[in-house]
Amino acid sequence: MASLLFEEVSKAAERIASHIHRTPVYTSATIDSMCGRNVYFKCENLQKTGSFKVRGSLNAILKLKEGETNVKGIVTHSSGNHGQAIAWASNIGGLPCSVVVPNNTPKIKCDAIRGYGANLVFCEPSPQARVSTCQKIADKTDYAIVPPYDHYDVIAGQGTIGKEFLEQTPQLDAIIVPISGGGMTSGISIAVKAMKPECKVFAVEPKGKNLEPCLKSGKRLWSDPPQFVDTIAEGIRTQQCGHLTFPILVENIEKEVFVASDEEMVKAMKLVFERMKLVIEASSAAGVVAVLSEQMKQMSGDLKNIGVILCGGNVDIDNLPW
Amino acid sequence: MASLLFEEVSKAAERIASHIHRTPVYTSATIDSMCGRNVYFKCENLQKTGSFKVRGSLNAILKLKEGETNVKGIVTHSSGNHGQAIAWASNIGGLPCSVVVPNNTPKIKCDAIRGYGANLVFCEPSPQARVSTCQKIADKTDYAIVPPYDHYDVIAGQGTIGKEFLEQTPQLDAIIVPISGGGMTSGISIAVKAMKPECKVFAVEPKGKNLEPCLKSGKRLWSDPPQFVDTIAEGIRTQQCGHLTFPILVENIEKEVFVASDEEMVKAMKLVFERMKLVIEASSAAGVVAVLSEQMKQMSGDLKNIGVILCGGNVDIDNLPW
Repeated sequence: MASLLFEEVSKAAERIASHIHRTPVYTSATIDSMCGRNVYFKCENLQKTGSFKVRGSLNAILKLKEGETNVKGIVTHSSGNHGQAIAWASNIGGLPCSVVVPNNTPKIKCDAIRGYGANLVFCEPSPQARVSTCQKIADKTDYAIVPPYDHYDVIAGQGTIGKEFLEQTPQLDAIIVPISGGGMTSGISIAVKAMKPECKVFAVEPKGKNLEPCLKSGKRLWSDPPQFVDTIAEGIRTQQCGHLTFPILVENIEKEVFVASDEEMVKAMKLVFERMKLVIEASSAAGVVAVLSEQMKQMSGDLKNIGVILCGGNVDIDNLPW
Repeated sequence: MASLLFEEVSKAAERIASHIHRTPVYTSATIDSMCGRNVYFKCENLQKTGSFKVRGSLNAILKLKEGETNVKGIVTHSSGNHGQAIAWASNIGGLPCSVVVPNNTPKIKCDAIRGYGANLVFCEPSPQARVSTCQKIADKTDYAIVPPYDHYDVIAGQGTIGKEFLEQTPQLDAIIVPISGGGMTSGISIAVKAMKPECKVFAVEPKGKNLEPCLKSGKRLWSDPPQFVDTIAEGIRTQQCGHLTFPILVENIEKEVFVASDEEMVKAMKLVFERMKLVIEASSAAGVVAVLSEQMKQMSGDLKNIGVILCGGNVDIDNLPW
């Protein structure tokens, strides 16, 4: 992988280690028996700010400060979790911060972003409005933009999940990752292919993303302008994978993609609340849907030990989707 | 403590170790800052069956089998968590099992008890009906009764929480334990007083239990027949502490008792769901109420490191109390 070396993931891990949680890996006898394999859950819902996003954000911001002495502030756009992460990481880095969010973002996420001291800017709920509003602020304030996924330092930071997971659970035969812009999935794939090439990396998408034909053709077949997928899993509703993340995905991950419907994600959320006593958001539930799917049942018995990333837990508990 | 030695807690820990989780200890920067001290949460909500109760149940059942070769089965009465624990532990012990529950027990708990293979018997929701129904079954079937708290092997099993907690977090200055019949609190107090006598053990009760005057006078002042406290925290609604647990409490724990109202417990549950991403039941929330209380704020600054037992996570997520 010429674009991003595992060495950068290792450096990111060192850079962020003292600020983030080394999240635990949990198992559930109930889910093992439902799945017929050993399932290991990497609990990034228990990560700082309630999602994995702090890893990439903090790596990007700390690296920026290492390289430049005159960083004025940070601005980004995000449907929520990346926004919280950037707000938190800017705080750690001692930098002012503005976060652009779509005007339909859950209140709990808005409150949390403000709680970390960032300035919140609302925009129309479209990918284009987010990007343009963010750019306007950057032009006006001279703040540096840290995008949600399509940035090598962000990808390297998210890759630390894969490194940690394999250190904690070296027996993994496959890892299932909920996919949106592809930052987490591509980062994890770089770590996995460097540390244990025979371990497969699968993506699970919300219905309507259509990643599989893109991976199979090696082409970003999505129609422009960029769209959001119609899903309750607002953490993974970006349809297009990024220009930097996509080539990494094509090189590293399995061409077969798992697909999770809203109904299945709600059911899986409930299962994890009830049986594992963990609060997860719908995007985390996508991984649980995949591991319990008919598609997984038909896969080789050689895949004995399956890792699932529970990527976040930021759900509005006053409005649970059941 | 002539009645129960720490040695029995240590033996219990060895006896049950291979079957139960060594539950994690979590912290929350948000709660630390709200409390003004370092707070450590012992996550027994992540224990097998979703509550600490498996420790005492399994210890009692395995010890019974060590002593007798002809144990025919197990019967108990329980508002839910102990029932699940006994069902699960009987299964581990390879014994048939009947569980008597009040007819207003949440469905999720009934389903779980049945799921572990036990026979469910409903009775009127009063302490007396539970005891008499349980005794009738024992007489008829010759099953051994394992009561929810007032039994030294159960107390010793619950005491393993205290031993583990101090091994994991030796800096604790105090531990706060939600109290019902007193099995967990007395067990933990035995471990704590043996391992670190200067560490204080506090009980937190649902409003209406009135433990404090009992502890101060050294007398079980509760009026008979035994009552349930009117509280949403159905895991801790038994008003009277036991005849075996009470003298241990008087000897070991602080006379000052924390009191949690329903409203405070609901608020604390939400806080833990939202900030810690953990599913807890109302009885667990009682400990969170205590640590955030005005009463705690007024306690000595020497109590820097406070442990809280999150004793269970079996809440009906279709009917969350907010």
